[in-house]
Amino acid sequence: MSISQKKEFEEIVRALTEEEEDLPHLKNLSRRDRKAAETRLRLFRSALQLFAERGFPNVTVEDITEAADVGKGTFFNYFGSKDHVLGVMAEIQIGKVREALAQVEAGKDLVRSILHRLLQRLSEEPGRSPDLARALVTSLLASKDVRELVDGHMAQGRHFLARIFEIGQERGEVDPNLNTAHLSRLLQQSVLGGILLWSLMGEPKLKAAMDQTFQQFWRGLAATPPESKR
Amino acid sequence: MSISQKKEFEEIVRALTEEEEDLPHLKNLSRRDRKAAETRLRLFRSALQLFAERGFPNVTVEDITEAADVGKGTFFNYFGSKDHVLGVMAEIQIGKVREALAQVEAGKDLVRSILHRLLQRLSEEPGRSPDLARALVTSLLASKDVRELVDGHMAQGRHFLARIFEIGQERGEVDPNLNTAHLSRLLQQSVLGGILLWSLMGEPKLKAAMDQTFQQFWRGLAATPPESKR
Repeated sequence: MSISQKKEFEEIVRALTEEEEDLPHLKNLSRRDRKAAETRLRLFRSALQLFAERGFPNVTVEDITEAADVGKGTFFNYFGSKDHVLGVMAEIQIGKVREALAQVEAGKDLVRSILHRLLQRLSEEPGRSPDLARALVTSLLASKDVRELVDGHMAQGRHFLARIFEIGQERGEVDPNLNTAHLSRLLQQSVLGGILLWSLMGEPKLKAAMDQTFQQFWRGLAATPPESKR
Repeated sequence: MSISQKKEFEEIVRALTEEEEDLPHLKNLSRRDRKAAETRLRLFRSALQLFAERGFPNVTVEDITEAADVGKGTFFNYFGSKDHVLGVMAEIQIGKVREALAQVEAGKDLVRSILHRLLQRLSEEPGRSPDLARALVTSLLASKDVRELVDGHMAQGRHFLARIFEIGQERGEVDPNLNTAHLSRLLQQSVLGGILLWSLMGEPKLKAAMDQTFQQFWRGLAATPPESKR
């Protein structure tokens, strides 16, 4: 792993450290549960740091627990396997969708603007490094357990997205004839596919690719096709 | 691997055997080159059959050459590694895009109808089995060599797609203000993401998911938004 890649991963870890609000459920827990959640988060961050330094296949569970300064057995209280660590990434992403729904419900901005920002935020972490993006998708595909775990998160994500589209329909921004469950799945596959294709091609920047993804997607669902606004 | 999965893979192999026209370059080769291309195709089919029976990780190169009835060394005349076998799948898919472009150039049908059929055809092989779809994506992500190989095929695919969109613009079907290179990448990521999400969720059928993908995508690029046609 090159120095620049290592630096990228360190940035990811720092970003995750600073984005405590992406795990808002931490705030409403008992002291004991909160401590458990914090240990889990510490294990997650140590693991990500090590994946950055050595590459995913070269990191053992023992490496992670040593770096996080907990007993080896503790790891398995929180994660079924090394792969499961990456399931936490799905949780962080779902937190962003939940936040977008809260913004839509608060009604302070257009659904269009909130969705556009959401796609930008969803591409932030994977967009820092094609290696990390590939590691995330690979681990998702490799293990049935991880798939089931992430499937649950993604179903929750689709539930939030469908609600966002419904509110968009009520406010006249989204075509009321469209099926919001289908739209949710289509948006998820656009984001997933966008990250996957970018992790293979490297270019353009994921942020730019996500902007284009949003524009095309929104044009496909807008109540009044924005012919005149382009 | 279950009996039903095995049956699915056998169907894929049969489908590939019958779709010789997806490798049209075979027709224009010298006898020697044609023999080489046939050996390569035989190795590919034997490999796919074995992946079906035993699972990708449990198949060795020797297993493949034995099944194809060629010497072990022969394999490496055609493929850099076991992973590379799956690169042939990309070739088959690009063959379908090339065919769609030929249909568009012949001008016998709407670009819209030809693109819709193309998305259906692209989902045919991976759509038979989530396992195969996952194996394809995993091998794509795992090896730098395979990525470079497939990257080349996909760039060619985007080139063909851009030409299809350009002709669509000339004929008034596609909005002339849109960037055809961007559209090509967006369509590729929609198809990739659609296959990936389906391989994780299993439901609905990939064919149905691709129909929805096409409808939403076309709505996002149509010159005259099909408000009245839905």
